[in-house]
Amino acid sequence: MTDQRSNGLKPLRVAIVGLGTVGGGVIRLLETNGALIARRSGRPIQIVAISARDRTKDRGIDLSAYEWVDDMTSLVQRADVDAVVELIGGADGPALTLARQCLAAGKPFVTANKAMIAHHGLALAGAAETAGVALKYEAAVAGGIPVIKGLREGAAANEIGRVYGILNGTCNYILTTMEKAQEAGNPRDFTEVLKDAQALGYAEADPSFDIDGVDAAHKLSILASLAFGTRLDFGGVDITGIRHVIAADIAEAAALGFRIRLVGMAQNGAEGLFQRVHPMLVPLNHPLAHVDGSLNAVVAEGNFVGRLFFQGAGAGDGPTASAVVADLIDVARDEYGDAFAMPVASLADQTKADAGARIGRSYLRFQVADRPGVLAEIAAATRDAGVSIESMIQRGTAAANDGGVLVAIVTHAGQERCIADTLARLAGSDSLLDQPMVMHILD
Amino acid sequence: MTDQRSNGLKPLRVAIVGLGTVGGGVIRLLETNGALIARRSGRPIQIVAISARDRTKDRGIDLSAYEWVDDMTSLVQRADVDAVVELIGGADGPALTLARQCLAAGKPFVTANKAMIAHHGLALAGAAETAGVALKYEAAVAGGIPVIKGLREGAAANEIGRVYGILNGTCNYILTTMEKAQEAGNPRDFTEVLKDAQALGYAEADPSFDIDGVDAAHKLSILASLAFGTRLDFGGVDITGIRHVIAADIAEAAALGFRIRLVGMAQNGAEGLFQRVHPMLVPLNHPLAHVDGSLNAVVAEGNFVGRLFFQGAGAGDGPTASAVVADLIDVARDEYGDAFAMPVASLADQTKADAGARIGRSYLRFQVADRPGVLAEIAAATRDAGVSIESMIQRGTAAANDGGVLVAIVTHAGQERCIADTLARLAGSDSLLDQPMVMHILD
Repeated sequence: MTDQRSNGLKPLRVAIVGLGTVGGGVIRLLETNGALIARRSGRPIQIVAISARDRTKDRGIDLSAYEWVDDMTSLVQRADVDAVVELIGGADGPALTLARQCLAAGKPFVTANKAMIAHHGLALAGAAETAGVALKYEAAVAGGIPVIKGLREGAAANEIGRVYGILNGTCNYILTTMEKAQEAGNPRDFTEVLKDAQALGYAEADPSFDIDGVDAAHKLSILASLAFGTRLDFGGVDITGIRHVIAADIAEAAALGFRIRLVGMAQNGAEGLFQRVHPMLVPLNHPLAHVDGSLNAVVAEGNFVGRLFFQGAGAGDGPTASAVVADLIDVARDEYGDAFAMPVASLADQTKADAGARIGRSYLRFQVADRPGVLAEIAAATRDAGVSIESMIQRGTAAANDGGVLVAIVTHAGQERCIADTLARLAGSDSLLDQPMVMHILD
Repeated sequence: MTDQRSNGLKPLRVAIVGLGTVGGGVIRLLETNGALIARRSGRPIQIVAISARDRTKDRGIDLSAYEWVDDMTSLVQRADVDAVVELIGGADGPALTLARQCLAAGKPFVTANKAMIAHHGLALAGAAETAGVALKYEAAVAGGIPVIKGLREGAAANEIGRVYGILNGTCNYILTTMEKAQEAGNPRDFTEVLKDAQALGYAEADPSFDIDGVDAAHKLSILASLAFGTRLDFGGVDITGIRHVIAADIAEAAALGFRIRLVGMAQNGAEGLFQRVHPMLVPLNHPLAHVDGSLNAVVAEGNFVGRLFFQGAGAGDGPTASAVVADLIDVARDEYGDAFAMPVASLADQTKADAGARIGRSYLRFQVADRPGVLAEIAAATRDAGVSIESMIQRGTAAANDGGVLVAIVTHAGQERCIADTLARLAGSDSLLDQPMVMHILD
């Protein structure tokens, strides 16, 4: 604060590296809201240089006011650059080189790069600590939602037991589109909706990072470290995407009073650190059930505050730029601290929890051959695995793919290892027409 | 940050003044989560003195470890007190005296006192600026939800057009209890539910501050100043509480696809600053419609981030303590700045908007005598006032109080002044059995 005051009207001079959608958004935001931001920051935030791979590309934005720099790493040595904003993306490569050089040179570094933070966040935070400068990444998780601040500061007084949420807008768009189609009596399958999402720009040409849950896992591992004060452990996240969710799952879930969401869930306790991204059945009375389209949402459960819920746009140039510039305002105000809410050396080393010991209800869906004895075979497997069945529905061929019969089961609460055991007992059975689907229920 | 580091393990020594529910919660929180907070703050937060009006009162908490001080104002001069936490309450009186003396003495001041901040926030922020110390009040708005931080920092890059939300847990508890009773086919009226809420401790013995909307108005005026960078103007809030919401309103709203919530709404623009607390009809697809019981929620609409939604516990010792201690952690980290996100002198003086010029849909409910011509009288008044009717329902005597007939109207979007004109035209009519009810629709 004293630093901020003494800055008077000296601008915070920033270099922006990477001029894709988000980079363009940051420039547009600083141009549009510049006067307001200067009032809030105590000083203007001024773009002094820009850099990207291809200077000739038409970005639909007038960049002539800004100095173009071909060698992005030269920016970290420039005396007239106070902070560097990295919007290139990618866990390694140029983004990581830039981050390392920037922090080593003692310059604040702001990024929207979730992959890089998930893989190299602790090393970069250590470098920022050594240099005594800011490493900020609000835009890396849940787009425009200020959830990094929400955990690092807003919920800082709490021991957080669980943090979970909807962390990938592409998956949520696909799942809620399938849901709406189902409600309209016109069920559509995953691959069909994905194609539409690609055509509309809601999904990438290569959508695997999103739909296989990797992007959500990057974000989840960052949230977990912040929430629990544990060392960031991306490798410890169990990941299941949404490729195998079929229209019949959406229908069965709805009939049972649930909606399907790709949930990133982390829990910490005596049993260790649990981190998983997976499609879950969310009851209608839970706020995550009402998070539609490409929205993101995060829930944090603290021992004093109870359940905090944050929702907003998880992607897009405007919301992401909002988060990037919020970080720049923190830097301009000189209001920042440890990247992971405490020094890296204070973060606890936590063992990975045994997911098999988790207690909960599950949804199992089988597509099976339409012949006598199949239901008995499944029922026997669940019985032998110690799974107690709450409800079981068999539907005719119309509901299942490949002309089979659909069997959907909801279990009573029990250990997850028993579900795995059920599937192991059925593995190789020629009654099954494809891989069974398991989704846990958020209770 | 450099300041924080140089503090090393030197504790932040705090005095707590006011030992009601929240004061007890703060002590319990610091005792329970102390080690974690020390890791996150970079140093321990230590209670060195406590004070309240009555030393002999049994508070159900062991206070023997802390030095009791009778003269609370003596705390601000003590060299061994680094920050003062005020949890007495009340806009004026001892709380205000303590705040003024504390800031004048150059000590950080943390409070949960919404009334005091709403009435004296700018003067106190000015005193904090002069002294170069923190004035923090996260707990004053929406309890445990970090919405002050959300606006001051998280959304800081945005021009905020509207900020609104559910800011009073007592009112929300009463309205959602009426709603659930209605859904269960057992409609209950306001006074009856209020009595139950009082018996359960969800409403005060004198509930007027809550149910008449004053408490929500305090909070709204604080949010508006933060969101818009305008001078705090509690006097500019138009306030209508929930006393006149009857079971039939809940039923009609539900039939039309709405839920009734007490909404604090502020909007800023060329037309001036609009601030109002009033029961509104909220469509089911809006997140505020799903905020139940004593929860609070805040929506901020930014020109880049879009719609941000924050939800959590709006009251109670745990959540409020969580917000108070989050502020203390900011002080311990030396991460704080201007109380209203910019220097007081930078806040804009904004004129009050003419609410009559606002465009929107409205719900009007009349309880009228059961005789010919009454419906025609109301219809004529709306026509002459230029109000266009979207739907009109007349229900028999069972729905209305006092043996009358209930008439409920939903208008097309139009200027609010026309609604007022309608009521003026009907004023004094002996067809009306009581005051008409007007609620605007959140669109």
